[in-house]
Amino acid sequence: MKTILITGIEPFDNQAVNPSWEIARQLQRRQFGDAQVATCRLPCVFGLAAERLIEAVVVHRPLLVLALGQAGGRSKVSLERVAINIDDARIPDNHGEQPIDRPIISGGPAAYFSTLPLKAMVQAMVKAGVPAEVSQTAGTFVCNHIMYGLLHFLARADWPVRGGFIHVPYLPSQAAAHPGAPSMATATVLAGLEAAIMAALNTERDIAVTGGAVS
Amino acid sequence: MKTILITGIEPFDNQAVNPSWEIARQLQRRQFGDAQVATCRLPCVFGLAAERLIEAVVVHRPLLVLALGQAGGRSKVSLERVAINIDDARIPDNHGEQPIDRPIISGGPAAYFSTLPLKAMVQAMVKAGVPAEVSQTAGTFVCNHIMYGLLHFLARADWPVRGGFIHVPYLPSQAAAHPGAPSMATATVLAGLEAAIMAALNTERDIAVTGGAVS
Amino acid sequence: MKTILITGIEPFDNQAVNPSWEIARQLQRRQFGDAQVATCRLPCVFGLAAERLIEAVVVHRPLLVLALGQAGGRSKVSLERVAINIDDARIPDNHGEQPIDRPIISGGPAAYFSTLPLKAMVQAMVKAGVPAEVSQTAGTFVCNHIMYGLLHFLARADWPVRGGFIHVPYLPSQAAAHPGAPSMATATVLAGLEAAIMAALNTERDIAVTGGAVS
Amino acid sequence: MKTILITGIEPFDNQAVNPSWEIARQLQRRQFGDAQVATCRLPCVFGLAAERLIEAVVVHRPLLVLALGQAGGRSKVSLERVAINIDDARIPDNHGEQPIDRPIISGGPAAYFSTLPLKAMVQAMVKAGVPAEVSQTAGTFVCNHIMYGLLHFLARADWPVRGGFIHVPYLPSQAAAHPGAPSMATATVLAGLEAAIMAALNTERDIAVTGGAVS
Repeated sequence: MKTILITGIEPFDNQAVNPSWEIARQLQRRQFGDAQVATCRLPCVFGLAAERLIEAVVVHRPLLVLALGQAGGRSKVSLERVAINIDDARIPDNHGEQPIDRPIISGGPAAYFSTLPLKAMVQAMVKAGVPAEVSQTAGTFVCNHIMYGLLHFLARADWPVRGGFIHVPYLPSQAAAHPGAPSMATATVLAGLEAAIMAALNTERDIAVTGGAVS
Repeated sequence: MKTILITGIEPFDNQAVNPSWEIARQLQRRQFGDAQVATCRLPCVFGLAAERLIEAVVVHRPLLVLALGQAGGRSKVSLERVAINIDDARIPDNHGEQPIDRPIISGGPAAYFSTLPLKAMVQAMVKAGVPAEVSQTAGTFVCNHIMYGLLHFLARADWPVRGGFIHVPYLPSQAAAHPGAPSMATATVLAGLEAAIMAALNTERDIAVTGGAVS
Repeated sequence: MKTILITGIEPFDNQAVNPSWEIARQLQRRQFGDAQVATCRLPCVFGLAAERLIEAVVVHRPLLVLALGQAGGRSKVSLERVAINIDDARIPDNHGEQPIDRPIISGGPAAYFSTLPLKAMVQAMVKAGVPAEVSQTAGTFVCNHIMYGLLHFLARADWPVRGGFIHVPYLPSQAAAHPGAPSMATATVLAGLEAAIMAALNTERDIAVTGGAVS
Repeated sequence: MKTILITGIEPFDNQAVNPSWEIARQLQRRQFGDAQVATCRLPCVFGLAAERLIEAVVVHRPLLVLALGQAGGRSKVSLERVAINIDDARIPDNHGEQPIDRPIISGGPAAYFSTLPLKAMVQAMVKAGVPAEVSQTAGTFVCNHIMYGLLHFLARADWPVRGGFIHVPYLPSQAAAHPGAPSMATATVLAGLEAAIMAALNTERDIAVTGGAVS
């Protein structure tokens, strides 16, 4: 049976939950066409997070990898376009590490583009009534680190596989404690991801609609 | 039997739905203690909206009135503190009227404060995991008009009744079409309103916690 | 000779400066038509701030009073439409007082509207190339307190005088220390205020253009 | 004599001015240490903009290249960290072209990092009282295109030269016509750039302070 690997991250930054894992674990064993979801919870730790993800990829040899992460302050599900080869931590990770301007892979390419059909996935989510957008930056913390590590590995994979990173807003219960912060209910994110996963499975070549930013 | 009156507003500003009415109608006939919810859908029309609300108040003689409205662009459920005696419409209402700097009630007071226990209601919503806040302005469009009209009437009511206005964010399906706009799922808003209504029924005198704004 | 009274506030909230006073003191003795500017620096203290302002009004018997204050987080010069009869302090004032939901004037009206020709003043500022807008809330801290106290006093004045409150953004040097905060240079604010003061002096009855907010 | 090349862009998106060129032309012939500023106004056109910039680089063989651009909606001077190999235009350029997901250089690297000492430059601007920050995305429009084209060329330059891209906010006169938009006065941006240029000239190896984003 084919596998879709969906990962979330443990809580960080003094949060009790991480919406990315709350979402991912609800998709465990879910069927999409002839593929089934496997999940993995990643530590919020530079280095280790990418290692764990790659181990899961090696075990499952999935046809699709969606790594999820929390984006406090964003109001929409964000499909990341690009991961860059830099760690620059504004806050410490869960092991207390706070690298500054350090390459993720020494000598690696400056960036990798997501290999997901981003525009088709966003369009499917919006059609499903879920706020979604392409994002031009995954930041420079553990989320970007995970995405870069994943795409660096997949670039050398010897089976057909597509992967990328998706940021999700705070849960309502998190935003309740943050003045001004937007949020999204688990059920809304799940409805969006279901539509996005089907779009990813059914789209060979991405559609040509803009998802750009002027600045 | 005692009544809680909850009103919503019809869609406006080219929207297909108005979350305030989507929420209100799901509370129809709901029981809270020994009180039952009655609902009313108001037109998005200066003058008429307040008249319809007052008619419903006269018919039901409720102990609690919650007038709901849509606040596109806000990320939290907002309990309005004050309504001001002015109509200043940035867009036309649903009858094409666009008053500028016109008093709602000629010779009326400059403002009315909500008679709801706002701080207790916000605290209950946050405890229920729902993003909520006190808001210092209901704008100058039909929502503020409705709130002012309601409080002007209730100030003269000859039975014990408390009332006020609550703004709710876009639904996810609305925000999906608005770049950058935050949203809140119906189920999240409902969970918050249930907690807020119980707090309103159980709070005689509001609690002393800040809900202010520096500017 | 006629007088225009312009007041600023001392620094608060751990800031080294308050842009409202930096602006006001640069207008000291400036001529506008046959009127000259007098200034006054108010303490950021509930009660005392309004007392000092009223003392200055009594001394100068100005034809125009512009009370200025700092609005960290706002990007435009904001002409406040209304002051409400409530103190609700999110942070302590400079005497350590932090009132919650306390009327400014016990038994006073719920609100006072600015008696400035707001729309004409905003239009003049925008024509001068300065970002400006009508604001529907002055908050519930010392700025709103000052505005309410001023308008409560002016409502009983026995000479022709108009007054109101204007919020100004952080100075660039303040915003440099606040992630994401917008700012405005002193010279830009001054150019705007000069245009606004001339408009106030030359406008008997305000113009009819919208300055409203939908929510 | 040594040269610092500073470029701006012509107006686009229905604007009458572009702050990047208003700033750049005021720096024309300015001296910094033993170097003098040369300037160039670039068209807001995919392809052509990068060609013109590279021509100017070839002519001047500068030791430092600062390409400036307008970032409507941003409140701080933004030093861009990275340019990505994609054009995805949300609006047409000034020749009416609107590419979607098209590589800037077919077969080129996914991204280039700025070769400016970003952290030292931001620190110098903040010390000068000018709001500034590192930005993790230059968007996917002509600004990112220019930055990628510049860095692709400089990567092969046979003389010591550093370069990158800096986004500046709207001018106050532009923001006056955009509800909610922050702005920055020309004099403030100039003060910041002077400090940043001196820091760039005096910093061999960038300082280790965070300029990262969590998401």
